[in-house]
Amino acid sequence: MHIYSELLELFLAYLKNENLVQAPENLYEPYDYIMHLGGKRMRPILCLMGYELFSDESVKESTLPYNLAMAVEVFHNFSLVHDDVMDEAPLRRGKETVHQKYNINTAILSGDLMLVKAYDYLAQTSDKYLPKALRVFNKTAAEVCDGQQYDMDFEERSDVSIAEYLTMIELKTSVLVGASLQLGAIAAGASEIDAQNLYDFGKNIGISFQLQDDVLDTFGNAEKFGKKVGGDIIQNKKTFLILKAYENGNPDQVAALSELMSSKPSDEGQKIEAVKSLLEQLNIRQDTELLMAQYYDKAFAALGNIDLDDERKKPLVAIVKKLMFREQ
Amino acid sequence: MHIYSELLELFLAYLKNENLVQAPENLYEPYDYIMHLGGKRMRPILCLMGYELFSDESVKESTLPYNLAMAVEVFHNFSLVHDDVMDEAPLRRGKETVHQKYNINTAILSGDLMLVKAYDYLAQTSDKYLPKALRVFNKTAAEVCDGQQYDMDFEERSDVSIAEYLTMIELKTSVLVGASLQLGAIAAGASEIDAQNLYDFGKNIGISFQLQDDVLDTFGNAEKFGKKVGGDIIQNKKTFLILKAYENGNPDQVAALSELMSSKPSDEGQKIEAVKSLLEQLNIRQDTELLMAQYYDKAFAALGNIDLDDERKKPLVAIVKKLMFREQ
Repeated sequence: MHIYSELLELFLAYLKNENLVQAPENLYEPYDYIMHLGGKRMRPILCLMGYELFSDESVKESTLPYNLAMAVEVFHNFSLVHDDVMDEAPLRRGKETVHQKYNINTAILSGDLMLVKAYDYLAQTSDKYLPKALRVFNKTAAEVCDGQQYDMDFEERSDVSIAEYLTMIELKTSVLVGASLQLGAIAAGASEIDAQNLYDFGKNIGISFQLQDDVLDTFGNAEKFGKKVGGDIIQNKKTFLILKAYENGNPDQVAALSELMSSKPSDEGQKIEAVKSLLEQLNIRQDTELLMAQYYDKAFAALGNIDLDDERKKPLVAIVKKLMFREQ
Repeated sequence: MHIYSELLELFLAYLKNENLVQAPENLYEPYDYIMHLGGKRMRPILCLMGYELFSDESVKESTLPYNLAMAVEVFHNFSLVHDDVMDEAPLRRGKETVHQKYNINTAILSGDLMLVKAYDYLAQTSDKYLPKALRVFNKTAAEVCDGQQYDMDFEERSDVSIAEYLTMIELKTSVLVGASLQLGAIAAGASEIDAQNLYDFGKNIGISFQLQDDVLDTFGNAEKFGKKVGGDIIQNKKTFLILKAYENGNPDQVAALSELMSSKPSDEGQKIEAVKSLLEQLNIRQDTELLMAQYYDKAFAALGNIDLDDERKKPLVAIVKKLMFREQ
């Protein structure tokens, strides 16, 4: 069993050796660009961990299912390229987004190609496990599209419920975390039920991660978080924190929040502080962390259902804990 | 063996029974909209014909591989949705394009979903044939993206060769015609070599069709063609006709054509007539029809390599001839 840092090194070496560029270069260069823009590579590593969990005690590094790790990473990056077009985002991981660096048509078509290439990597799976892997991948890919659509729909709506928000983040971000683990497990010949439990572990951890992202965006330490704190507030995003505050606040607090969340102030810092102060009055951070803990517990209950030594689950547990408690 | 009109009816009945819309509706309605916009349904019908060619003498209508027919039709429509965004086209089959009716973000995301749904239909293939079908589909899908990129690249270039143009149309439109037939053949258990010959038949017929489209767009009878004649000329498209004229013309003719093809005249009819007259002087229509005949012969040579009774190939030959000689 390899730990995260070892698998990351192996995956990056594999990625480096893949020649992603071919003719027509205008199509493949953006694919190469986004794939080398960095990131934690969480999904491919979880895929490899899912494999090692159910495979031989001593998996040879050469036989790890890199193709599946690539499939989930290429898919994830495809979704970033198209989401950035839809959100008109200029930056991704501190660098220009694809449509910003090239143009919108290039971002659309290169994204399409990447989605096909994700399936191409998937198709390298042995015939024995390919049908099952393809069906998991299809379901997940459609759900990620659904999630992005809900996210866009919610921007236009003022009556989004907390249940709807949780469904949205589950679809948009968490199912792919679960599927990454599940695909690795499938390739290792795990039973249906074990693969499903591992999926449930990943999905619930993914929701917990996303809630944590919401918390850190507002309450995080700017230096450790690596992003501008308060970005969600400035963009008037209806995150869990805001929706919960609407639910918990008295009429005056709701009215004050509503006004703040539709304002475009000249002093951004003042707006951030005012919203934070309201959220603090209402104990929203604590409420969110409580919900995070519930998803976290649900995840570990699913992992507990998998009948393997705790020792074997250690690298997976270690990386999840590290990501979970990265910034408190 | 069913003939085209019978298979069309069966496919349309199948499509009608498929419930394409689910939540979130903003994502699935555009998918439903484009899928019911009509069209000849050439690719799905060819897919069913490819199946019947190699399957039992008496295929039951209930056991036709509708899932594969849907896969190629949904994929084709996905490519139309995204191409229309890239080309800023307002109309498709006489109706509003998806981005025109909804908006660009919807067209991007619904297109993405459709690409996933195409794979979802593909995944309904029996496990025995799925890996092979998936690999054919992936190769084809990537080539269609390549073709669209070359098409966009060529708009910016003034030195496109005829060989490059032929490669572009092969990738952008013809490989999917070949793959539609091939996928049907694969699902019927055809041998590798038979499926390949059928693919070659479809691909070469597809190139021939596209060249015919170029001819009809300029020399067709407006009423029969169903589109505005001269559209390619007005859009300054570098079709085979124009590239061939550049090759065959004397310096004066090349200069005249070059000026015409970069002009935006107030009188479109005059421009169309001037270009047509130049093309006629240079016998371009005859040259194009000669090349069409070469691809057509190549296609039928490949079909001839398939060791089946001519009787059995009849419905396929009939529809290809009908499409080929639709407007002379």
